[in-house]
Amino acid sequence: MTIGEVVGTVVSTHKDEKLIGAKLLMVQPLTLDRKPKGEPLMAIDMLDAGAGDRVLLVHEGRAAQLLLGKDLSPVDCAVVGIIDHVDLHEGC
Amino acid sequence: MTIGEVVGTVVSTHKDEKLIGAKLLMVQPLTLDRKPKGEPLMAIDMLDAGAGDRVLLVHEGRAAQLLLGKDLSPVDCAVVGIIDHVDLHEGC
Amino acid sequence: MTIGEVVGTVVSTHKDEKLIGAKLLMVQPLTLDRKPKGEPLMAIDMLDAGAGDRVLLVHEGRAAQLLLGKDLSPVDCAVVGIIDHVDLHEGC
Amino acid sequence: MTIGEVVGTVVSTHKDEKLIGAKLLMVQPLTLDRKPKGEPLMAIDMLDAGAGDRVLLVHEGRAAQLLLGKDLSPVDCAVVGIIDHVDLHEGC
Amino acid sequence: MTIGEVVGTVVSTHKDEKLIGAKLLMVQPLTLDRKPKGEPLMAIDMLDAGAGDRVLLVHEGRAAQLLLGKDLSPVDCAVVGIIDHVDLHEGC
Repeated sequence: MTIGEVVGTVVSTHKDEKLIGAKLLMVQPLTLDRKPKGEPLMAIDMLDAGAGDRVLLVHEGRAAQLLLGKDLSPVDCAVVGIIDHVDLHEGC
Repeated sequence: MTIGEVVGTVVSTHKDEKLIGAKLLMVQPLTLDRKPKGEPLMAIDMLDAGAGDRVLLVHEGRAAQLLLGKDLSPVDCAVVGIIDHVDLHEGC
Repeated sequence: MTIGEVVGTVVSTHKDEKLIGAKLLMVQPLTLDRKPKGEPLMAIDMLDAGAGDRVLLVHEGRAAQLLLGKDLSPVDCAVVGIIDHVDLHEGC
Repeated sequence: MTIGEVVGTVVSTHKDEKLIGAKLLMVQPLTLDRKPKGEPLMAIDMLDAGAGDRVLLVHEGRAAQLLLGKDLSPVDCAVVGIIDHVDLHEGC
Repeated sequence: MTIGEVVGTVVSTHKDEKLIGAKLLMVQPLTLDRKPKGEPLMAIDMLDAGAGDRVLLVHEGRAAQLLLGKDLSPVDCAVVGIIDHVDLHEGC
């Protein structure tokens, strides 16, 4: 899984019917010291994450499809947790 | 999922028979500020996306195969939505 | 899927038995303007692609295994089409 | 699989119910000469790895889901071994 | 699939039980002209590859799990062939 920050919401009227009703967030991956790194990912969200939240993303088809609760949905990325904090070990 | 812009159409006469009839688009991934980034992806399109459209891509085998509607087709990327706009949260 | 150019053939005598008889090509991924980019991929080929051909690659296990026609073969990349040309849209 | 060093623990109160009880580590991928490289991965851990341990990560949905022991859990990365050492061959 | 050179052996005493007995190699991916590129991958090996061998790697869960011969093992990368040579086409 990766960590990212919720930076936006994707609006799409014309989409696959299995995506209707799904909330779709734009999430910016973050580095160890919380800097943005790499390109944004679009993820479905069933946990009601909000702007600025740090979230845990799963980036794999079966797992994301499971979360959407619709069999064989065309998704590959999902929010699976909202992060309270990360305890970095000493010396890291 | 990732966001990209439709930049072309791929023409292939000699291909796997399960791809016959499938529309195949060349899509350029985009950054948060809509700049091209990384290499183009080829995606099947069942939503009739057109030149310049910003689209939502799923990049996973099972999901793409599902969209093509043919069991076990050899595809791994598909257009799953045409994007109206992205609401970027303030401060992002 | 990605686009690449066939640059070589891989010869392997000692290999998994399910790969015996499979043609294995070395394919160099290409950018939008047909420049080599990134590292070469090895792909099975059932379409008889030749040196210099631009090909469409699927890079996913189930899809590649399907093409090889042997259940649960240890492959993850396959040629699924030989590209005639790409129609780039104006302004792209 | 990849090798990484355990650098932290992820704390998430609000998460998918199938993740409740799962220990979630932040792991920094390492190069051949044990330097950090690339962005951290979040992995479930059933082996009780600790701070500073070098671990073997599997980064694939089915495999990670298997380890968690809950059918179809939304995870894609897991610790599958704690590394004692790597024997580098001469000349490498 | 990708090509790499066997550079080491990974020793792990405390690991998932399904990995017990599996030989685990460290493999350095190679470029077209056989230079090291990118980070090392850990792969199971059932073909008895040795130090310095150039090998063909499959990097996908189902395929690697198949090779290990244990149902649903937590692996995602495996050696599937030892490469004799690559015939590069003229002009490449």
